[in-house]
Amino acid sequence: MQKNYVQEILNIIHGNIPQAELAEKLSDYHEKDLADALEALMPAERKSLYPILGVDEVAEIFAYLDDAEPYLKELSRDEAAKVISNMDSDDAADALEDLDEIDKGEIVNKLDRDSIEDVKMLLSYSEDEIGSKMTTNYIRIKNDMTIRQAMSELVKQAGENDNISVLYVVDENEHFYGAIDLKDLIIARAEDPLAELIVGSYPYVTDREKISDCIERIVDYAERSLPVLNEAGKLMGIITSSDVVELVDDEMSDDYAKLGGLTGEEDLRESVFESVKKRLPWLTALLFLGMLVSSVVGAFESVVAVLPVVICFQSMVLDMAGNVGTQSLAVTIRVLVDENLTVSKKFQLLWKEVRVGLLNGTILAVMALSFLGCYIHFFKGYAWNTALLLSGCVGASLVVAMVVSSLVGTLVPMLFHKIHIDPAVASGPLITTINDLVAVVVYYGLAIVVLIDLFHLA
Amino acid sequence: MQKNYVQEILNIIHGNIPQAELAEKLSDYHEKDLADALEALMPAERKSLYPILGVDEVAEIFAYLDDAEPYLKELSRDEAAKVISNMDSDDAADALEDLDEIDKGEIVNKLDRDSIEDVKMLLSYSEDEIGSKMTTNYIRIKNDMTIRQAMSELVKQAGENDNISVLYVVDENEHFYGAIDLKDLIIARAEDPLAELIVGSYPYVTDREKISDCIERIVDYAERSLPVLNEAGKLMGIITSSDVVELVDDEMSDDYAKLGGLTGEEDLRESVFESVKKRLPWLTALLFLGMLVSSVVGAFESVVAVLPVVICFQSMVLDMAGNVGTQSLAVTIRVLVDENLTVSKKFQLLWKEVRVGLLNGTILAVMALSFLGCYIHFFKGYAWNTALLLSGCVGASLVVAMVVSSLVGTLVPMLFHKIHIDPAVASGPLITTINDLVAVVVYYGLAIVVLIDLFHLA
Repeated sequence: MQKNYVQEILNIIHGNIPQAELAEKLSDYHEKDLADALEALMPAERKSLYPILGVDEVAEIFAYLDDAEPYLKELSRDEAAKVISNMDSDDAADALEDLDEIDKGEIVNKLDRDSIEDVKMLLSYSEDEIGSKMTTNYIRIKNDMTIRQAMSELVKQAGENDNISVLYVVDENEHFYGAIDLKDLIIARAEDPLAELIVGSYPYVTDREKISDCIERIVDYAERSLPVLNEAGKLMGIITSSDVVELVDDEMSDDYAKLGGLTGEEDLRESVFESVKKRLPWLTALLFLGMLVSSVVGAFESVVAVLPVVICFQSMVLDMAGNVGTQSLAVTIRVLVDENLTVSKKFQLLWKEVRVGLLNGTILAVMALSFLGCYIHFFKGYAWNTALLLSGCVGASLVVAMVVSSLVGTLVPMLFHKIHIDPAVASGPLITTINDLVAVVVYYGLAIVVLIDLFHLA
Repeated sequence: MQKNYVQEILNIIHGNIPQAELAEKLSDYHEKDLADALEALMPAERKSLYPILGVDEVAEIFAYLDDAEPYLKELSRDEAAKVISNMDSDDAADALEDLDEIDKGEIVNKLDRDSIEDVKMLLSYSEDEIGSKMTTNYIRIKNDMTIRQAMSELVKQAGENDNISVLYVVDENEHFYGAIDLKDLIIARAEDPLAELIVGSYPYVTDREKISDCIERIVDYAERSLPVLNEAGKLMGIITSSDVVELVDDEMSDDYAKLGGLTGEEDLRESVFESVKKRLPWLTALLFLGMLVSSVVGAFESVVAVLPVVICFQSMVLDMAGNVGTQSLAVTIRVLVDENLTVSKKFQLLWKEVRVGLLNGTILAVMALSFLGCYIHFFKGYAWNTALLLSGCVGASLVVAMVVSSLVGTLVPMLFHKIHIDPAVASGPLITTINDLVAVVVYYGLAIVVLIDLFHLA
């Protein structure tokens, strides 16, 4: 059974105990739980709590708030600046981003000297660049130090900077030189040269890289942190695995949103109008694409007038084309994200998808042929030869539609990926529309052939 | 420009340089890049490389392999056991899981005494339990130590265990007592009592928790590591943020797979038959659900025979119902994953989705009414009143279908979540089918009303 720390904290705060004891008791809880508790308090209660907690603790707690703005506003500008100065640089930048431009500008100017430079640098990156997510909380040592000097440098910096599992080495120009595993430093003898411990060809990311472009690479290295360099090779900061967790989690939420064509993540607290605003653009686009498909179906009205039974299976053929397209899309996006594909690999993927589509299509077509044949004969009262002709038409359409859908479901995301549009967002409606159109034309086209055959039979 | 370290490594290995120099040069690269390079070598090249790298380095490299089996088989059983003994316990358990049962059993018995217990414990958890992902690589100190003792304990353990940012405190029964931030320990004075530094109400997970149940909680704490306790409160291991990155990333891949109804993640290397096997079950299920919809459409054949123009808009109404259902599904799944909903919150969500559906439906219906009215009048040659009746029928169907779809898209995942079936997997086809059926019945039902009206007009 998980303990409810937030409730415990609220009970303590509402317990009317002396301030010193209160501070002591609250220090026993994790800052995330304290942040959750803060959100449940009244503004007045919070304001009397801040001085008890102290600037350092408030800074750590505020780093866990989803939106720090209302809480920072409960402090004076000077107090807010002090709190933000005490945060890790990336958390400080996040908190400042929550504020409006005026507050942000005023508070930035009140930050202490150490923070102001780091925060300004972080704010200079746009939100989708990996540089905006880095922290300057790391141990930096020079490549010409001895092991003993590196050790004492570590102890000196560790009070301020607690990402110490990897030590980052720079040369005399502050350019990234390599990294040292703390474990290696601890077991090394003080007289060994430092150079032996440095991994020189250490993985890195560059500050202006798009997060979506480098996140998989970062995940693959599974390091506690990776260095972020600028174009010239200067060490600007590091990305920690806690940051990466957040980034990957955000991407996941984004993917869910994209899947529904939502322009942003929604939550319970949002108003109906905001939700409508997020969903309507997509739906409107789909409505007009749907009208396009409708007008193509309209061209085959005469077929339906003569042989109304064909409409029964239109939805099935279209749905199946859509399902196959979605599968190919899911596989292709995954492969595109995971690996850097050469052209020949892309053709290989395409060719594979086509064969999978053909095989699946054929198997399903045989099922459809037999089941629908029986259905049309027994339930719709058509003669066997007509029933088989009609179900054969459905089966043949399934095969063609599924092969084409596989092809489209693979090609479209590749194309969008190539021109640097996120394939997960853009592919869905285009694929659905193309597949619907192809399926409709093939299905009714074949139905016309069946009709002609039927007239010959008659 | 990102450097191609893997190519550099391959050039070095193929460069025919003396062994000592080779070892020295390779030590300059990250183990992940070395693992990628290993995969590109011939088995014979690898076999001659292993002794040069040494057991320790091979262990670190093998931890990065997706499937360690073929590589472990290139070593003797004794060598393989030595390599696995040198891995972190969670990586060791992963590598052993790659092997078949016989090899696994034999190698486990050859592991060194320190590893054997940890690995056996990790292997005792099932793959979806958080315990299977933890590591025993952490610093463990007793609650009755002084700060000085804790410091020297840290230095003693740090050579073996490099997750040192948080120190885990246990009582005399090895039960979890709290955690200490390394930063706090470093800046504390040696004469302060250790108890002051310990955060007693520290967040934790229990070893038998399902990963999917606790992953969001772990992510929210954004810690470098969290303790894993057994039911009795004994400290069993820790989950590090690198593990969490992997878990969240795996979940993301799973979600992509689920979105297409794939029973597992696919990749390029898979054969066509394997892919067909993964995708066919889902498609078959959808085919039969599609047949169900078809038979319902079949019931309205007579409407179509008299008024063939109605089939034009069937695909549009069905598609829109599907799109709205997907949006509600995406939002609901996200909310279900993120928060623990009370019954009243669930009703709130449901009510909100219905209102969003109604508003979106009404707006789209008005667009459809005007555009389709013109289309039917000008392109299909119907009189204005018939055209408006028909497009009104489409519009009304859109509103009803979209409200119902919102409802179904919210209720179905909630239901699956309640009965502990993953809503992301199961919801899709059920929602599509229900929505198709509702849309078909509403659309053709309204078309019948239009028909009757038309006869009255005629």
